[in-house]
Amino acid sequence: MRDSYTEALDTLASELSEMSRIAERAMADATRALLTADIVLAEQTIEYREEIDTLAVEWEHEAFAFLARQSPVAHDLRRVVSGINIVADLQRMGGLAVHIAELARRRHPAHVLPPEVEGVFTEMGRVAIAQAEATQRVLETRDAELAASLRTQDEEMDALHRSLFMLTSAPDWPHGVPAAVDITLLGRFYERYSDHTVEVAKRVIFLVTGARPTDES
Amino acid sequence: MRDSYTEALDTLASELSEMSRIAERAMADATRALLTADIVLAEQTIEYREEIDTLAVEWEHEAFAFLARQSPVAHDLRRVVSGINIVADLQRMGGLAVHIAELARRRHPAHVLPPEVEGVFTEMGRVAIAQAEATQRVLETRDAELAASLRTQDEEMDALHRSLFMLTSAPDWPHGVPAAVDITLLGRFYERYSDHTVEVAKRVIFLVTGARPTDES
Repeated sequence: MRDSYTEALDTLASELSEMSRIAERAMADATRALLTADIVLAEQTIEYREEIDTLAVEWEHEAFAFLARQSPVAHDLRRVVSGINIVADLQRMGGLAVHIAELARRRHPAHVLPPEVEGVFTEMGRVAIAQAEATQRVLETRDAELAASLRTQDEEMDALHRSLFMLTSAPDWPHGVPAAVDITLLGRFYERYSDHTVEVAKRVIFLVTGARPTDES
Repeated sequence: MRDSYTEALDTLASELSEMSRIAERAMADATRALLTADIVLAEQTIEYREEIDTLAVEWEHEAFAFLARQSPVAHDLRRVVSGINIVADLQRMGGLAVHIAELARRRHPAHVLPPEVEGVFTEMGRVAIAQAEATQRVLETRDAELAASLRTQDEEMDALHRSLFMLTSAPDWPHGVPAAVDITLLGRFYERYSDHTVEVAKRVIFLVTGARPTDES
């Protein structure tokens, strides 16, 4: 039988992976709502905010209680302390997905995206969801190699993000300033979502190897 | 004579306030570099990134060592745990100020800002710096009332942010898409900087009162 110490640590870990699953679903739904101008799906996505914020508060509460009661040291302490930062990243990922859905809702029944950029956002959504899936697996397996691979996907996201600027800043961009402003914000939301998956990966790498990934990303 | 336990806690607290001071200086310099297209100042501002990242890593290291060696409980434990989140917010504030400086550098010798929006960014800079100053005082005094006042300033920032959208999206906006894209990103950086000061304030309110501020901000 597992003791309450191990059980509490395992619960904290599995709740992190549950939160990353919700952050992933929020991004998948937000992207679909954006691409199809689906108001119902946009509103469902916005409801994830409360769910993920509640989970974050509960997690912090449990982690605090565990630290206070059990005074873990060494690796177990590091797992909990890393978790405090990881929860903040996952919560922010959910928040960014909600921002995407909010923009889809605000422009409804119009589509936010002109046809020229739909392909880029389809790809950005695909990369973001893949990164969130990898984040979840990294949290479950604490596989440092898989964590390192998240940073490669981040480069793909950066390239997609740059391509948006090329499109909206071209002299023959036909959709005017308001569309370009929406696209700029959306691009930033996807890029930041991606950044947070990398932050989680870096935390896990540090947890497993004791070495901090050095280059900025 | 203070014992090493109290001394370590005090050091952790004073380092937080030092980081908030740097995040404030970074914002002041970034805003000046932006408004005056000052490349030297922009580059100096960009150097804060390494300084603030190094301080954040060191802080986390010290906090971990303190938790491992001293196993604090109750209020002292909560101070350190809050600090873990606060450091992340302060680090991000520094990062956002650096983003502003990077954009000023990228457009040099041109000015990023057309004359119509200079006034708004002057105000956004003023509010952001005032919020960072208040954040520093909140960290030093743990004054929950002062912390609550940060949320009012956040509304001022939101109003400034909205006014940018009005300006760039007006049918007679004369500066084209690329300028509007830059302004959109800059507006987002200021708004997020402001959000992080509010996050710090909320952490301090929770630390002092035990109650979590409920409404979203």
